Amino acid sequence: MAAYATATRGLQQLLVLSALGLLVTGTPRPPNIVLLLMDDMGWGDLGVYGEPSRETPNLDQMALEGMLFPNFYSANPLCSPSRAALLTGRLPIRNGFYTSNGHARNAYTPQEIMGGIPNSEHLLPELLKKAGYTNKIVGKWHLGHRPQFHPLKHGFDEWFGSPNCHFGPYDNKVKPNIPVYRDWEMVGRFYEEFPINLKTGEANLTQLYLQEALDFIRTQHARQSPFFLYWAIDATHAPVYASRPFLGTSHRGRYGDAVREIDDSVGKILSLLQNLGISKNTFVFFTSDNGAALISAPKEGGSNGPFLCGKQTTFEGGMREPAIAWWPGHIAAGQVSHQLGSIMDLFTTSLSVAGLKPPSDRIIDGLDLLPTMLQGHVMDRPIFYYRGNTLMAVTLGQYKAHFWTWTNSWEEFRQGIDFCPGQNVSGVTTHTQEEHTELPLIFHLGRDPGERFPLSFASAEYQDVLSRITQVVQQHQKSLVPGQPQLNVCNQAVMLTKVKIIVLGGK
Amino acid sequence: MAAYATATRGLQQLLVLSALGLLVTGTPRPPNIVLLLMDDMGWGDLGVYGEPSRETPNLDQMALEGMLFPNFYSANPLCSPSRAALLTGRLPIRNGFYTSNGHARNAYTPQEIMGGIPNSEHLLPELLKKAGYTNKIVGKWHLGHRPQFHPLKHGFDEWFGSPNCHFGPYDNKVKPNIPVYRDWEMVGRFYEEFPINLKTGEANLTQLYLQEALDFIRTQHARQSPFFLYWAIDATHAPVYASRPFLGTSHRGRYGDAVREIDDSVGKILSLLQNLGISKNTFVFFTSDNGAALISAPKEGGSNGPFLCGKQTTFEGGMREPAIAWWPGHIAAGQVSHQLGSIMDLFTTSLSVAGLKPPSDRIIDGLDLLPTMLQGHVMDRPIFYYRGNTLMAVTLGQYKAHFWTWTNSWEEFRQGIDFCPGQNVSGVTTHTQEEHTELPLIFHLGRDPGERFPLSFASAEYQDVLSRITQVVQQHQKSLVPGQPQLNVCNQAVMLTKVKIIVLGGK
Repeated sequence: MAAYATATRGLQQLLVLSALGLLVTGTPRPPNIVLLLMDDMGWGDLGVYGEPSRETPNLDQMALEGMLFPNFYSANPLCSPSRAALLTGRLPIRNGFYTSNGHARNAYTPQEIMGGIPNSEHLLPELLKKAGYTNKIVGKWHLGHRPQFHPLKHGFDEWFGSPNCHFGPYDNKVKPNIPVYRDWEMVGRFYEEFPINLKTGEANLTQLYLQEALDFIRTQHARQSPFFLYWAIDATHAPVYASRPFLGTSHRGRYGDAVREIDDSVGKILSLLQNLGISKNTFVFFTSDNGAALISAPKEGGSNGPFLCGKQTTFEGGMREPAIAWWPGHIAAGQVSHQLGSIMDLFTTSLSVAGLKPPSDRIIDGLDLLPTMLQGHVMDRPIFYYRGNTLMAVTLGQYKAHFWTWTNSWEEFRQGIDFCPGQNVSGVTTHTQEEHTELPLIFHLGRDPGERFPLSFASAEYQDVLSRITQVVQQHQKSLVPGQPQLNVCNQAVMLTKVKIIVLGGK
Repeated sequence: MAAYATATRGLQQLLVLSALGLLVTGTPRPPNIVLLLMDDMGWGDLGVYGEPSRETPNLDQMALEGMLFPNFYSANPLCSPSRAALLTGRLPIRNGFYTSNGHARNAYTPQEIMGGIPNSEHLLPELLKKAGYTNKIVGKWHLGHRPQFHPLKHGFDEWFGSPNCHFGPYDNKVKPNIPVYRDWEMVGRFYEEFPINLKTGEANLTQLYLQEALDFIRTQHARQSPFFLYWAIDATHAPVYASRPFLGTSHRGRYGDAVREIDDSVGKILSLLQNLGISKNTFVFFTSDNGAALISAPKEGGSNGPFLCGKQTTFEGGMREPAIAWWPGHIAAGQVSHQLGSIMDLFTTSLSVAGLKPPSDRIIDGLDLLPTMLQGHVMDRPIFYYRGNTLMAVTLGQYKAHFWTWTNSWEEFRQGIDFCPGQNVSGVTTHTQEEHTELPLIFHLGRDPGERFPLSFASAEYQDVLSRITQVVQQHQKSLVPGQPQLNVCNQAVMLTKVKIIVLGGK
């Protein structure tokens, strides 16, 4: 560790030089950072996590060469808040990516939403940019589509992708198809200039996104600039798609075709880093924004392995994610860490890789995982599971306490929208909101990863865990100052004319 | 393959020499065979199959050095029939390990049963013995407890273990505790001379079984005798147990402690083979007798990963098993095969390893998997899922057709016996026997390994699969001559005095 600390200090000095434009050719640069963020990919979708068809040889190899995290979590079971959390290192309840106009209501950024990432938030690319990094986002932004929320206003130097999900199309003038941007310029729309064939599932978007990644890496390498690549692709979000060479090649249908193309692409990105000789100077992390969307299964939804339910829920299937860290020469090969990890840790850890400290003027939820990755340290920390502004559950060590449980409303459920198909744990996967704040349901996730057997309220184990978790929750709530909610979905007429901000009172 | 064929012919000649006692010191011997058979261990219990706690480093390493089978099946969702199938290479309906006195009734060998493995069956050790092998069974026999069924009457040279499961104890004269044998001699009983502490879970049985295995391997190596070790241990069958050094060491509770001790033991067995320099001359296969017993979860039952239900059922969770082949220098490292495999293949494959052919006077269901293991061949073959004398389901390629579905009776279920806790697929995991013989429920196991989304009856895919599966089933049933049922459980007074044989008429 002493050697690493020295190296880090050396890097910090270099970064100062770099920021001043003094970095000369041939001088070692601070490590590059590549975050590979999947869309609706589930914990169980990778061979290394037990997917029976085992069609992810490149990702499995990445895990063999790096560190696998079986206990890694998103910050929300939905895409926008999870992505906002990654880039700010903060819970959505702090950074504003939630709603206050419905209890336990998940929030995202539909095309009509007026909100987005507040200027007051410090995003990872902003901080890295100040330290001399060149930053690119490829794929889905999802932090607001109005001009003030544009990624190039929040620290990115380049963008190829879209502000919203690729579902649609909306063929009318009020709701036009989702735009695709190259930097500041709108270069087309999904289903038009960027076709997605809903019938066959064919689209070459992953190939475009791959090419963008490879070109960016080559260019920055040639420029000798440290770089941050945020590769936020979306082929595994319904409607799932793959390019022609991958269509029909999977044992798992179209969803599997998309996974195979992604796996192939990740392999090509890692190979390029190796071929350019910069793999030892590039920190790479692979994860997903939330659990697999079982509402789209089996044809367009993935797998959450042995876990309960999926996307939209605060059960393990909704928020436990595949996660692999790769940094040859730094992270020893073939490790598994049971550190409870969070997508928010990618903010703090990336800063640490760059030799930077997180902002000190606000609460940052993300931890620096470098001591875990480099030295195998395991830190005690809670995982908070929110839906909207409601703290649904907390995991501490092996125990998870549910303060509220539900999946979706009876109304939705009766329409066939099922977040837990084939799964039904009595009193847990309910269609009314069940309050357990006085006596939370507690599960031992080691013995019971599927959240099927709550501990007996009368057991000593329950009492012990409850007292420890209660302390953690009280401490969390005492210091919590909710941000202004950005994602309240209101009357559409209002939404299209002004942002309706509702300040959430302290609880 | 030519080289292998030549080698095989060479081995066959050697075996003839060996059988004639002409094998001289220093001459290469035919490969040893080690079958590691677990009890109620589920597909999802190994790290390499995605168990989140990842506490099986030795088994995961075994897979990395060998071939992993994600699509490997037992021959029955219960222990006795599955074990009879392994040792005979034949479906339980053929070898008699079924009942005819209840529709879709699983059968096993309780302490009171009069039946057992018929003399007319040719067991693997009998065939290997004729070819010069020395054979040992360590652990659970479960093919009948009366004298004529003793393992040493069916080809084994040595035995340390018991004829029945270790649950109990029965502290009365009519039902004494289960005996433990060394060869012909009863050397004690479970809970007496071989203690199992039901309160703490402590028992040193796995250590005894490990020592038996290591001693046998060392002795046969010193004798230069080819050997067959059938290591049929039972620590993961409720009541699960572990020895003191492993108790409390798992993230998964007592069940995980048992798994950790087994993993450690497998590591020691493979290490010994390597240290003795005979790993390249020893074929090793690891699997389990049926799916994890979810009735005993979460404290004493394992995991079936993403699959539906568990032991006792003909859903994937009841019959899909962990399976790893290991034979350094022969089976290339790090392979995954999607061959549909069966526990019955271990009969035929073991014979093939020894250079022998299976009996030609009867139908053998097991295939020779050596072409799969050595050359990556994938053969088309069905998997039949029986409960008792009822063909419940068939898998062909990626498709599984259910002709009958049910889990257990309402009566049992209302008493709290649940084979599918937290899982409920409407019309599938039923508590009445549902007949679908005219219009089977068909699942695509690649897209839907959890058997949650039956294909639409109206789809072209359904019609195509139905016609192919119907042919396979008709062919199977046309040639089927059921064996005499050995496991009819009747009036106890009758059972204790004579075997009641009911010959099953053709359907």
